[in-house]
Amino acid sequence: MTSSSPVLAIAAAAKSASSALRTTTTTERNELLYGIAEALVANAESIVAANANDVTAGEANGMTPGLLDRLTLTPDRLEAIADAVREVAALPDPLGQVVRGSTLPNGLLLRQVRVPMGVVGMIYEARPNVTVDAAVLALKSGNAVVLRGGSAAAHSNTEIVRVIGGALAAAGLPTELVQSIDEYGREGAVELMHARGLVDVLVPRGGADLIQTVVRESSVPVIETGVGNCHVFVDASADPQMARDIIMNSKTHRVGVCNATETLLVHADAAHLLPDLAAALAGAGVTLHASEAAREAIGAAAPTVPATDEDWDTEFLSLDIAVGIVDDLDAAIAHINQHGSGHTDAIVTSDVTAAQRFQAHVDSAAVVVNASTRFTDGGLFGLGAEIGISTQKLHARGPMGLADITTTTWHVTGTGQVRDGYTGPSSCETV
Amino acid sequence: MTSSSPVLAIAAAAKSASSALRTTTTTERNELLYGIAEALVANAESIVAANANDVTAGEANGMTPGLLDRLTLTPDRLEAIADAVREVAALPDPLGQVVRGSTLPNGLLLRQVRVPMGVVGMIYEARPNVTVDAAVLALKSGNAVVLRGGSAAAHSNTEIVRVIGGALAAAGLPTELVQSIDEYGREGAVELMHARGLVDVLVPRGGADLIQTVVRESSVPVIETGVGNCHVFVDASADPQMARDIIMNSKTHRVGVCNATETLLVHADAAHLLPDLAAALAGAGVTLHASEAAREAIGAAAPTVPATDEDWDTEFLSLDIAVGIVDDLDAAIAHINQHGSGHTDAIVTSDVTAAQRFQAHVDSAAVVVNASTRFTDGGLFGLGAEIGISTQKLHARGPMGLADITTTTWHVTGTGQVRDGYTGPSSCETV
Repeated sequence: MTSSSPVLAIAAAAKSASSALRTTTTTERNELLYGIAEALVANAESIVAANANDVTAGEANGMTPGLLDRLTLTPDRLEAIADAVREVAALPDPLGQVVRGSTLPNGLLLRQVRVPMGVVGMIYEARPNVTVDAAVLALKSGNAVVLRGGSAAAHSNTEIVRVIGGALAAAGLPTELVQSIDEYGREGAVELMHARGLVDVLVPRGGADLIQTVVRESSVPVIETGVGNCHVFVDASADPQMARDIIMNSKTHRVGVCNATETLLVHADAAHLLPDLAAALAGAGVTLHASEAAREAIGAAAPTVPATDEDWDTEFLSLDIAVGIVDDLDAAIAHINQHGSGHTDAIVTSDVTAAQRFQAHVDSAAVVVNASTRFTDGGLFGLGAEIGISTQKLHARGPMGLADITTTTWHVTGTGQVRDGYTGPSSCETV
Repeated sequence: MTSSSPVLAIAAAAKSASSALRTTTTTERNELLYGIAEALVANAESIVAANANDVTAGEANGMTPGLLDRLTLTPDRLEAIADAVREVAALPDPLGQVVRGSTLPNGLLLRQVRVPMGVVGMIYEARPNVTVDAAVLALKSGNAVVLRGGSAAAHSNTEIVRVIGGALAAAGLPTELVQSIDEYGREGAVELMHARGLVDVLVPRGGADLIQTVVRESSVPVIETGVGNCHVFVDASADPQMARDIIMNSKTHRVGVCNATETLLVHADAAHLLPDLAAALAGAGVTLHASEAAREAIGAAAPTVPATDEDWDTEFLSLDIAVGIVDDLDAAIAHINQHGSGHTDAIVTSDVTAAQRFQAHVDSAAVVVNASTRFTDGGLFGLGAEIGISTQKLHARGPMGLADITTTTWHVTGTGQVRDGYTGPSSCETV
């Protein structure tokens, strides 16, 4: 486990530090979080100064105004970030929860108990508030965290990690519970992806390219998050007004997020609804990438561009939408299962059989009947803070709360019981 | 997703077939399993004949008598395998279970429902009964399965898969639900490990080398199972008779399994118990690989060999045990967390504080107080059939039951709800 690599040394230090957090009480971890909130506000000046370096560099590198705005920290924004930390502190503690328990016939007591993962790795992109968010969610759930942020926010992240380190030290905890590997660049990130045995889980947060790289490269278990090629399917029996409200909200309420809709599919028998739907979308500034049949159905109601093959697989994250007509419900399900990212897909229908069939066959984290795709959200689902939205099937699927960066262990307590009798095959018998 | 690779074509066919199983009822899947049990018995002759080819090849290749015995199928053994299939059929269905549910303030109904993974990949070694076991556990939980068995059992596996295919066809289900890739050799196995998007989870079952290869190579999510470097720690306050019973059972009840103990650690203040413990182990034919201090404490009570550095990290799976003396409880915990495989570790103690500290700090799937390590078993824990014993922290930890090869999905049902208000940052906001 020892190595000359600084990143592996950091991961090893995180693993070692994590044992100090493992047995802290809920109160101690919450106090730590309140301390971090206070420290962020108290050190606003140095954080904003460090952030100014990143903003200046961003301007010089031609960063878009939107990204620059999201990169920028001000004392007011730090107050808001501190408030968010206090909200996490106030959430219920996932640790120590007894998930299952029983007493075996021989008197052995079994308890399956929720415990920390150990070390969580987070690889993410520009926004410096994610640094605070990731650190605080990890600490609340009893984990050490190794952070790899975007280089565009490197100065801000370094200062934020230093400030959090001060709060850790003040609480009598090792500063190695929150560490950054930003200075080791891309190679450092790759080493983190291979730190199996030191890092228990890696959560990439960012664009599709980042996430796919981590998924492909990593030998540490990964939770794939956040890519949403979401669909709204307007069934033959859809209420026209409801279809319009849902597609407009799913597409335009907020475009740069994973639960925004990227494809509209319309049942051939509801194609007459397309002109109205298209006009509404176009009226909101949406560019419609429409199939040939859809363009025909839309006619002069709204401008369209021809859909390319790639459009069906694209998470636009912009005021663009792919629009297609499908023969029937099963064709819609097949299209979604083939082209979707397994995030959130919705049907608008008045037909109870169609609704049931859609929910039974669409293989996504969230399958929605008669509501906007925008509802897939840890906060709205009542999970508290959101770590991310998992689009994989292992461990966690859909919005992830604090419990999703914990694991469980079986505590078995006896009075000297030994196993006798049966000595037949076992699933792990190998010799 | 399409490819000229036959293995990827098989995985794609499995994915496509899995949708047929997704909406079968519990009764239909159970009937399928009873049909498979019947078919195995009805086709005993052809299976035993195919198996004879493997046995003959095994003899020619100098396979050990133990492995040959485990490779061999007879009509009686097929009856026993068929009975095991019927037992799986009789287990509760994990599918359709509502894990959580609520109604949001806006009237949206949320249900988190247990659904199949889709396609499970299984990579395993010699025993042909694992072929039946893996297929039946996958089908019961609604999954298609792609099997890669050991080449030593290739004839048997081919015939078993053919027979299961007959039962699938008789039930009106696609035979692609159970497929083997044995004929594509090691490269085929590697392709399976990279069939991300087609295979949802890979479960390796076998020796440590096989499992490590799959974990390192695979870009498909893996559940790491079955390696058990288990420990028994005899605390200062241990009852001597209980310590002796537990160590004897943990080590000698069955040696070739992952929950057998491989290391005995004794508190320095209990070193006087070592001669008796060592004599009992040696009397049962166990070779003691003892540290210098332990050899001194054992003295003439039993023969010992010097422990090497590797012995502490070795899963012997034989009548061998590493024996060491530690200064105190914390040294025992540190040794276990450093050298163990995170499977099962036990303390023998009369001290409630020591018991609590051991359970709080040992980072393993099962942490046992005053009982044998041999109890970590899905059947004994009441999980029904055992898929394997996970030693990783993601998704499943410890004995895995049928529910552990399923996932969940959120069914969201509304009456036209759309999201309004807050449009601030989201965890998946990337642009």
